[in-house]
Amino acid sequence: MSNFQLPRGMRDIMPEEMVKREYVYQKIKEVLKNCGFSLLEASTLESLETLVAKSGELIKNEVYWFKDKAERDVGLRFDLTVGLARIVATNPELVKPLRLASISNMFRYDEPQFARYRCFYQWDAEVFGCEGVLADAEVISVTCSILESLGLNEYEVKISNRKLIEGLLVESGIPESKIPQVLRFVDKLAKLDEKGKRGEMEKLGLNEKQFGVILDLSKQGGSFRNVLKSFKEIKNEKVEKGLKELEDLASALEAYGKLKNCVVDLGIVRGIDYYTGIVFEVYDLKSKDLGAIAGGGRFDDLVGMYGKETPATGIAGGIERLLLSLERSKLLPEIRVSPKFFVIPVSESVKYKAISIAQEIRNLGISCEVDLLNKKLGKQMEYCDKKSIPYALILGEKELLENKIKVKNMKSGEEKFLSIDRLEELRSLP
Amino acid sequence: MSNFQLPRGMRDIMPEEMVKREYVYQKIKEVLKNCGFSLLEASTLESLETLVAKSGELIKNEVYWFKDKAERDVGLRFDLTVGLARIVATNPELVKPLRLASISNMFRYDEPQFARYRCFYQWDAEVFGCEGVLADAEVISVTCSILESLGLNEYEVKISNRKLIEGLLVESGIPESKIPQVLRFVDKLAKLDEKGKRGEMEKLGLNEKQFGVILDLSKQGGSFRNVLKSFKEIKNEKVEKGLKELEDLASALEAYGKLKNCVVDLGIVRGIDYYTGIVFEVYDLKSKDLGAIAGGGRFDDLVGMYGKETPATGIAGGIERLLLSLERSKLLPEIRVSPKFFVIPVSESVKYKAISIAQEIRNLGISCEVDLLNKKLGKQMEYCDKKSIPYALILGEKELLENKIKVKNMKSGEEKFLSIDRLEELRSLP
Repeated sequence: MSNFQLPRGMRDIMPEEMVKREYVYQKIKEVLKNCGFSLLEASTLESLETLVAKSGELIKNEVYWFKDKAERDVGLRFDLTVGLARIVATNPELVKPLRLASISNMFRYDEPQFARYRCFYQWDAEVFGCEGVLADAEVISVTCSILESLGLNEYEVKISNRKLIEGLLVESGIPESKIPQVLRFVDKLAKLDEKGKRGEMEKLGLNEKQFGVILDLSKQGGSFRNVLKSFKEIKNEKVEKGLKELEDLASALEAYGKLKNCVVDLGIVRGIDYYTGIVFEVYDLKSKDLGAIAGGGRFDDLVGMYGKETPATGIAGGIERLLLSLERSKLLPEIRVSPKFFVIPVSESVKYKAISIAQEIRNLGISCEVDLLNKKLGKQMEYCDKKSIPYALILGEKELLENKIKVKNMKSGEEKFLSIDRLEELRSLP
Repeated sequence: MSNFQLPRGMRDIMPEEMVKREYVYQKIKEVLKNCGFSLLEASTLESLETLVAKSGELIKNEVYWFKDKAERDVGLRFDLTVGLARIVATNPELVKPLRLASISNMFRYDEPQFARYRCFYQWDAEVFGCEGVLADAEVISVTCSILESLGLNEYEVKISNRKLIEGLLVESGIPESKIPQVLRFVDKLAKLDEKGKRGEMEKLGLNEKQFGVILDLSKQGGSFRNVLKSFKEIKNEKVEKGLKELEDLASALEAYGKLKNCVVDLGIVRGIDYYTGIVFEVYDLKSKDLGAIAGGGRFDDLVGMYGKETPATGIAGGIERLLLSLERSKLLPEIRVSPKFFVIPVSESVKYKAISIAQEIRNLGISCEVDLLNKKLGKQMEYCDKKSIPYALILGEKELLENKIKVKNMKSGEEKFLSIDRLEELRSLP
């Protein structure tokens, strides 16, 4: 039997979890649609070249890839951006700006951890064809609206700008060529102890002053106004451009009504190389330990790698982490997995009548199950209990003669009779 | 650039198709829920053994399978039943009867054809833990309700019974051992010409009488009553059992109110070996050329192969084929991909005000886009046209001073002014 176990890191989404997901997916889709984002579903399987083009040869160690029967290298997508970028690059006729979104699964071959599987789900919203920070503000605002629609109001968006940080690093004397490695160092600073930090610093050949600038980054932040003030003396093109972008972003976020949940945090750089401007991460303030529940930024150079150059910005959020967050804050409504009614024929002779009553109830738009096993009444009641079905509808020969059915509230035990001609009254039961 | 093409047989689902799918998925889910089926999502990736256990070693030629980095054989699922059966077998604590359903994608490495890709979607509904034909009637009825909820009322369910057919074949002198091959022969009869049929007959070592019985099968059918009458003289245990099941099935389908759309057709056997009783296929009578839009049957032995023996019956329908069917009969509603409104700031100075108006409209639950590019008014109107956005909301400095916005109907060209304090009136526009 062990051969029939799931591959490591894979899992099934069972009905109790599925109803919660459906609720969350629905909320996310409503907000996305409300803001003019179009849902699509890019292919799950991509050519390996497409995956490598986004994230480099090393990605081969982290994705599921293989040769298909025609000896072509193919791989399962590791995020939703890769497909969207390929679609936009290879369909230049699509009218810009283009607001695209997906909710789907992806696959990564890394070590399974708590709440982290080798197949997981994300929602994703991207704007293609806009250079300015208005588009960055739009994706941040959509994210805020998604969280708010789920009742998750105590969140914080931490915002930074790659241009500003790169400018600051260059100003401190770090050569341009080392910037990508230094950014990766900044990204993992929080996870390193003092010794680890020193080790990295030496590996990167940084001096004390440069090291100090880097350590200071994560301490810089807070309100947009403060940050803009701190650096305004620095005469460096990237720094000035970065500050201007943050200033405009703050104005736009204010117009969206979301600035109150946003702060600047220069410790946020996002680990991935391809970001080119504004970057951001979103935290549930009540569950900071979960890490970012969404994150993204501007990636103006990625689409061009697949074809037509197109500025782009976007955000992605993990569904599993979001569910955990909502669960902890008790923000998921009670959703019943079972139907509201269960029709029980007391004897074999009324089984077809039980079916037609159940079907009539279904036709009224009310969820209803009907017995398929002809078991004894006691067993049927047990089944109702185990499945938490709120009402049993019991049909006996005697009741049928009187054109009635017994309605039993499974929780209170209360029973009453209802005429079979007035099944629509079942709708009003709580 | 050619390296970034999708692998052969793969495709993206673009927004125009996605809104139709979302509509169809929603309808299917509503009916499933209404009938007490629980949605779940089994793993996309299974161990190869699990796939082979269902369909034999030959399935390796038809699925995407590979060795993962730990040298374990894994494969992408080729249907939704395999995951559901594994789940039921390995979770014996699940309360029976168990009505499970999924809507998801699967992968098959066969030759792409018209409307047939290597990744495609199905909906699937199965009942586990019920031996009797009431469960078969339930899945047939759910299928009928799904089609009816989509407005597809001219459909036909063709029903047969493996037990009856096997009994008839044995009665004609065909040895038990040849039955599986003969059933596969019956399944592809319609696709063979006279010579092909004769060839198969000789290969199977059938005599003329046996060949005649086989050819007659597909001519037998029609109303349940007629079929039951035709064979009632035959004294064979399997035939008698098969007929009794069909008789009970008809009574149940009548109780569900679906018998009028059901016929018996003994030419239906379903190609796959594992069916054990009632089998069925559903056809859109207006698009018979599409082939079956859903099909299934009873498979009492499959779950046991993964663990605990459990009787089961179920149905699956192809989403792509269903969409084609609905499209041809013009049963898909017009669904707008774009939002209803587009806010256009006439000059840079009012761009943030335009954003806050757009956000206010969104907060009212009305879909709205806002300009992110600061383009000239003419370009913006062009964008509205190209995207079929029905209304432009134009904000100029003069209008802003008067606290008004211009509402332009993009189709009629009609314009009127609306107070910015009364944006909720936008809701009443068609």
